[in-house]
Amino acid sequence: MAAPGFLFGAMASVGDVTPQQMHFSEPLPLKGGSALRDYTLVYETYGTLNAQRSNAVLVCHALNASHHVAGTYAGQERSEGWWDNLVGPGKPLDTDRFFVIGVNNPGSCFGSTGPMHANPDTGRLYGADFPVVTVEDWVDAQARLVERLGITQLAAVLGGSLGGMQALAWTLRYPQRLRHCVAVATAPNLSAQNIAFNEVARRAIISDPDFHGGHYAAHGAIPKRGLRVARMIGHITYLSDDSMEEKFGRELRAAELGYSTQDVDFQIESYLRHQGDKFSEYFDANTYLLITRALDYFDPAREFGGDLSRAFAAARDTRFLLVSFTTDWRFSPARSRELVKALVDNRVDVSYAEIAAPHGHDAFLLEDPRYHGVMRATFERIAREAEGAAHV
Amino acid sequence: MAAPGFLFGAMASVGDVTPQQMHFSEPLPLKGGSALRDYTLVYETYGTLNAQRSNAVLVCHALNASHHVAGTYAGQERSEGWWDNLVGPGKPLDTDRFFVIGVNNPGSCFGSTGPMHANPDTGRLYGADFPVVTVEDWVDAQARLVERLGITQLAAVLGGSLGGMQALAWTLRYPQRLRHCVAVATAPNLSAQNIAFNEVARRAIISDPDFHGGHYAAHGAIPKRGLRVARMIGHITYLSDDSMEEKFGRELRAAELGYSTQDVDFQIESYLRHQGDKFSEYFDANTYLLITRALDYFDPAREFGGDLSRAFAAARDTRFLLVSFTTDWRFSPARSRELVKALVDNRVDVSYAEIAAPHGHDAFLLEDPRYHGVMRATFERIAREAEGAAHV
Repeated sequence: MAAPGFLFGAMASVGDVTPQQMHFSEPLPLKGGSALRDYTLVYETYGTLNAQRSNAVLVCHALNASHHVAGTYAGQERSEGWWDNLVGPGKPLDTDRFFVIGVNNPGSCFGSTGPMHANPDTGRLYGADFPVVTVEDWVDAQARLVERLGITQLAAVLGGSLGGMQALAWTLRYPQRLRHCVAVATAPNLSAQNIAFNEVARRAIISDPDFHGGHYAAHGAIPKRGLRVARMIGHITYLSDDSMEEKFGRELRAAELGYSTQDVDFQIESYLRHQGDKFSEYFDANTYLLITRALDYFDPAREFGGDLSRAFAAARDTRFLLVSFTTDWRFSPARSRELVKALVDNRVDVSYAEIAAPHGHDAFLLEDPRYHGVMRATFERIAREAEGAAHV
Repeated sequence: MAAPGFLFGAMASVGDVTPQQMHFSEPLPLKGGSALRDYTLVYETYGTLNAQRSNAVLVCHALNASHHVAGTYAGQERSEGWWDNLVGPGKPLDTDRFFVIGVNNPGSCFGSTGPMHANPDTGRLYGADFPVVTVEDWVDAQARLVERLGITQLAAVLGGSLGGMQALAWTLRYPQRLRHCVAVATAPNLSAQNIAFNEVARRAIISDPDFHGGHYAAHGAIPKRGLRVARMIGHITYLSDDSMEEKFGRELRAAELGYSTQDVDFQIESYLRHQGDKFSEYFDANTYLLITRALDYFDPAREFGGDLSRAFAAARDTRFLLVSFTTDWRFSPARSRELVKALVDNRVDVSYAEIAAPHGHDAFLLEDPRYHGVMRATFERIAREAEGAAHV
């Protein structure tokens, strides 16, 4: 499935990495009206910031990921970052040339302040009281981190799926603070069907008796049943019909049908149950609700009466690469084309690659040679430009 | 959405109808190895069986339907049968010319023997002990009913979705007992993605603490939470992305976003919750498991090493109409085309209509003029033939 590494010459991992923390005591005002009074962001960096501070790339994460974009944790097997195939020395986003920042968003369950942390106002765990955070709130938090790292302008902001929405929001909110936006497998907003899948997943979690209105930690409970079902639903939407058919088809676990309604007969059932079980062991239910809600709410055209072209007028100075995958039915190529149109309407510099890939939405995390070729070429140009700026 | 009735001339309902029951004391052997020792089928009929008994049409139901195909129940508002727009005097399946039979399948929760009835072996409710029934088992049960009604050969067997699978199974199992098979929005088997959606729905039900391993009735409980989630998932797959977008889009319930993860913001959320709530009030959880399993298991090519053409060699004497809908992503046109190919390989008389309709899988239940036009023309031919047989 993955392209052989030698196609791209020698490639290595960024090696062992260590997450860092930055604390912010100035409140972060949130789109929903409240504020995050006091918070910590966990982040990682790879590569070296050049003297001109012109080579920084921010990588934004999607639903089920974190600041751990690349590299490994010392002594932990299989601890590769979630985009390790893309980010590293000699890789498309080359850490020999770029200073790459991965940051965990507030509300997540991977280290940055979230529902599993104490609410400074009460001293008790936030749980369901963690405020609803939006893509724009995350971008604001990221902008503060970037500023603290002494970076005035990012060479690029990169993200896939929900991460792509953050990259888009950067261009509207901080157009002077980035030169390039690379948004992969994303959309200008969720469709009714997208929201519907999120809502079913949330219902599964909320109606789990162990959810306790979101204060399950206070009850010593974890709504694992709901998390399992939520993940199974999500997982179906990440894969294409065809790739599921190719990988599992109607293959049975045993030689014969079991004639049971409760046991596993088909390999696809076994696979989905396994995915659900794994997920329910490490993911936080309140975080799942928060992140799916941030997805639902993202809609930059909303303030412009639904006119996406008007919304992207703010992005005139950014150069864009958009990438979509033909079999992605969660965020289909048609959704990326809506973005391309809005950018072209504003005479924005935009490149668009529609990659024929069989893997559905998950393709953005995989090592497809055409996809990685486009990414490599784009970051090559961005690197030369950043190095040019360094020589000015 | 529905075509105006006057396009097709005067159309009326079959009027008030009364379900009937037939008891079978001869055990029904099941594909899974066990048997249904003693069972009752609930059915309805519309129209009159002609003297030659040549004008009978059997209508098979899908997941969420029953024997109540057409007409109303006296004194009950909104009690129209689930295919009332198709079946009635002057309608495409014209009850002035045909004797139409609707039958509820064993394992269902609408009257025929199912998990909510007593197991004659124990005197206790079947619950989770109701044996796994297959499409073929249902067809066997239907064949006995048809025989008891004194009908040697049906003019046609008609069904949509899972009902279409039953119509197909008739042609393989009882090729001499029907002349026509009309299978709408169906498939030769479920894809991995289809099975995956069924499995998530089942997991939601089985992991509901009120499920009690399927013996919830004995515990005075009903796994409504699981049923709600199951129905919401199913419902998403019945509608097309486009029709959901057109009907709901990103429309909000209130004027502004609520900034809540647990409350309803979008109309689509409200709609899905309502569908889930309604369903959980009347549908039985064990029946949901049984019927989705029957869907999973249907696979006539399996005994022929996956060769669908070999499987349909048995159907040589039946004439087929297959209908699919362009936006049906549950049972897409490609799946119907697989069936057409298998039939053509056997030089079987098959007509195929691929209807450009926006409503997804649900289109088979709606009154699309092109769709109903094809059905009307087909049943007109079948009626003439049946009437010709009557004059011989």
